[in-house]
Amino acid sequence: MSFKLIHRDKSTKARLGTIRTAHGEINTPIFMPVATQGSIKTISNRELDESGVEIVLGNAYHLYLRPGPDIIGKAGGLHKFMGWSRPILTDSGGYQVFSLAGLRKVKVEGVEFQSHIDGSKHTFTPEKVIEIQGVLGSDIMMPLDECVHYPASRDYVEKSLEITTGWACRSKNVFNEVRSTKDEGRLLFGIVQGSTYLDLRKEAIERLLKIGFDGYAIGGVSVGEPRGLMREITGRAASLLPEEKPRYLMGVGTPCDMLESIAMGIDMFDCVVPTRNGRNGQAFTWSGELQLRNSNFKEDLSPIDEKCGCYTCKTYARAYIRHLFNAGELLGLRLVSLHNLHFYVKLIEASRKAINEDKFAAFKQKFTEDYTISNVKH
Amino acid sequence: MSFKLIHRDKSTKARLGTIRTAHGEINTPIFMPVATQGSIKTISNRELDESGVEIVLGNAYHLYLRPGPDIIGKAGGLHKFMGWSRPILTDSGGYQVFSLAGLRKVKVEGVEFQSHIDGSKHTFTPEKVIEIQGVLGSDIMMPLDECVHYPASRDYVEKSLEITTGWACRSKNVFNEVRSTKDEGRLLFGIVQGSTYLDLRKEAIERLLKIGFDGYAIGGVSVGEPRGLMREITGRAASLLPEEKPRYLMGVGTPCDMLESIAMGIDMFDCVVPTRNGRNGQAFTWSGELQLRNSNFKEDLSPIDEKCGCYTCKTYARAYIRHLFNAGELLGLRLVSLHNLHFYVKLIEASRKAINEDKFAAFKQKFTEDYTISNVKH
Repeated sequence: MSFKLIHRDKSTKARLGTIRTAHGEINTPIFMPVATQGSIKTISNRELDESGVEIVLGNAYHLYLRPGPDIIGKAGGLHKFMGWSRPILTDSGGYQVFSLAGLRKVKVEGVEFQSHIDGSKHTFTPEKVIEIQGVLGSDIMMPLDECVHYPASRDYVEKSLEITTGWACRSKNVFNEVRSTKDEGRLLFGIVQGSTYLDLRKEAIERLLKIGFDGYAIGGVSVGEPRGLMREITGRAASLLPEEKPRYLMGVGTPCDMLESIAMGIDMFDCVVPTRNGRNGQAFTWSGELQLRNSNFKEDLSPIDEKCGCYTCKTYARAYIRHLFNAGELLGLRLVSLHNLHFYVKLIEASRKAINEDKFAAFKQKFTEDYTISNVKH
Repeated sequence: MSFKLIHRDKSTKARLGTIRTAHGEINTPIFMPVATQGSIKTISNRELDESGVEIVLGNAYHLYLRPGPDIIGKAGGLHKFMGWSRPILTDSGGYQVFSLAGLRKVKVEGVEFQSHIDGSKHTFTPEKVIEIQGVLGSDIMMPLDECVHYPASRDYVEKSLEITTGWACRSKNVFNEVRSTKDEGRLLFGIVQGSTYLDLRKEAIERLLKIGFDGYAIGGVSVGEPRGLMREITGRAASLLPEEKPRYLMGVGTPCDMLESIAMGIDMFDCVVPTRNGRNGQAFTWSGELQLRNSNFKEDLSPIDEKCGCYTCKTYARAYIRHLFNAGELLGLRLVSLHNLHFYVKLIEASRKAINEDKFAAFKQKFTEDYTISNVKH
């Protein structure tokens, strides 16, 4: 068993656990920053270490196209290529392939698509995607799936789910072969699709459980549906997933979304928000969000967040960071991205502590109040 | 005396010294990285410290326009604004103002110009430029001057020099007033202009010496003139400048240019090359320059420079850095800028050591051979 359930919060469905991988254990709940192309944008590995990041997320689609599995394979895998020795989860790239509207063709066998970089033609089958992730040396692999966008008709979702479930089964088969010849403690998760149809989500879970995976991800959320609906799907799916496996909510989310989801029993998150919004000048703090480009910060000599211990907050003032954005200095993108990553990690660490003390409900409520009262944009 | 001459190399005219400033001593020869807008592009203060950077260079023109002296003054000066506690030299912005062809008008009183940012009209007088640098809290100030571009007619240069010399005198007067009310150990340098006319350079030096400055800069070089001519001007000017004052060659240069100039008795350098070229994928190494975007690095798992101890070289391989540039990842710009800064600092540190051992001529020759033999582009 790679997942160990350590403690259940008495005030919510939140839980503490660990996942053992080929590159060490990670603690859950966990936030995984996104290194789509093998780099957390603007951030060095040392900064990830210092921020307490335990695992990063790569993307098989992007890395397959550039630099290509050959180059990463020759480097000895993605860990060595990017100089990162802790765990890596790789997304299959299903989301990316299915975002290429007009450029891709889905068949039962797999999906044909054209590269977003140079228009070259490629085919992803579930088998190929696992093989690519094998070359990358991912600690946690994700199978090829169709991430259905919102809204989608029931008919479309039913057909898509049929394909996705078949692909999940084939992914497991090829993963078993890889594992049988070389067991390096690698893990494969299943991905629950079904869009906003709760009965289809339930059916998806039942079929995935029959195949059997090391963990279960909830996909196809945070794709444009109302926040309430996202939370309903998350809660329902989490309640149907087995206690003894980790639950990963893909692509989520904002600080409040993460806490709500942890309360429903979600263990893992990934999201580009801390770095993408950071590059846009938006900072996350314990008392809400700040747009640092705003002119009200031009003479503000306080750090982004008085409560924060990150390098940015220990060294630079808001007025300086605003100036960097105003003057087009890349250091600004870097400093806010670093702060945001640090904030996300510390928020999750604080969540773990609250769970351990059976106080997660109160923690979540207090955080949400502090966060939203002064929030400019939430 | 702020400048202390510690040792003269027996094999060249190179010299070792220290300059005492309001924010501590710096060792000469020295390379000063350029923080035009108050930021060494993509690099954090911690990285500057770790690279051994002792002083950075800001620009009065840029900082006057954005964020403006008011904001920096309210922060307590540029050191506090940018979170940098070691010395800062500020260039007057003469070079920038005189680069605004068509947008500026020179009078004896000062120069009218339009902002390159929003077209707003401004006037710089020598007095105003010193006052701005006073607000910035610069350790070493530079007077307003006209940096004449190459080529320029003798007639033009003579008239320009007349204005520049008058401005130098007025700068000194206002600087004396500032210093008399509040002596914080700030220094003012004079700038030798005169384009490629050696007799005018000589005249400029004589007139500046009569005014008297804490150090002397050679300006108007590296503006398009042939390299041989630049070296001739540098050598001649250096030989005419007093032994007991530091000599600063503005805007220079490449590794080999710096070593040649040190051999002529130059003490200080600034240049955007390590960071600008770094953002372009060009790395400086002890065995020459590398363009890391080249496809021959795509499977190269060695660091940029085996001999380098910088964070980039200790952590990342050429193949990874090439991928970052190829994929448009900002981390690439950062990693090569950091490596280049580190290289420049270590090159100057090694130069100091060689001077101390009276072996600078041999050191320079060996470096230049190693550097140029394998050089792709030099």
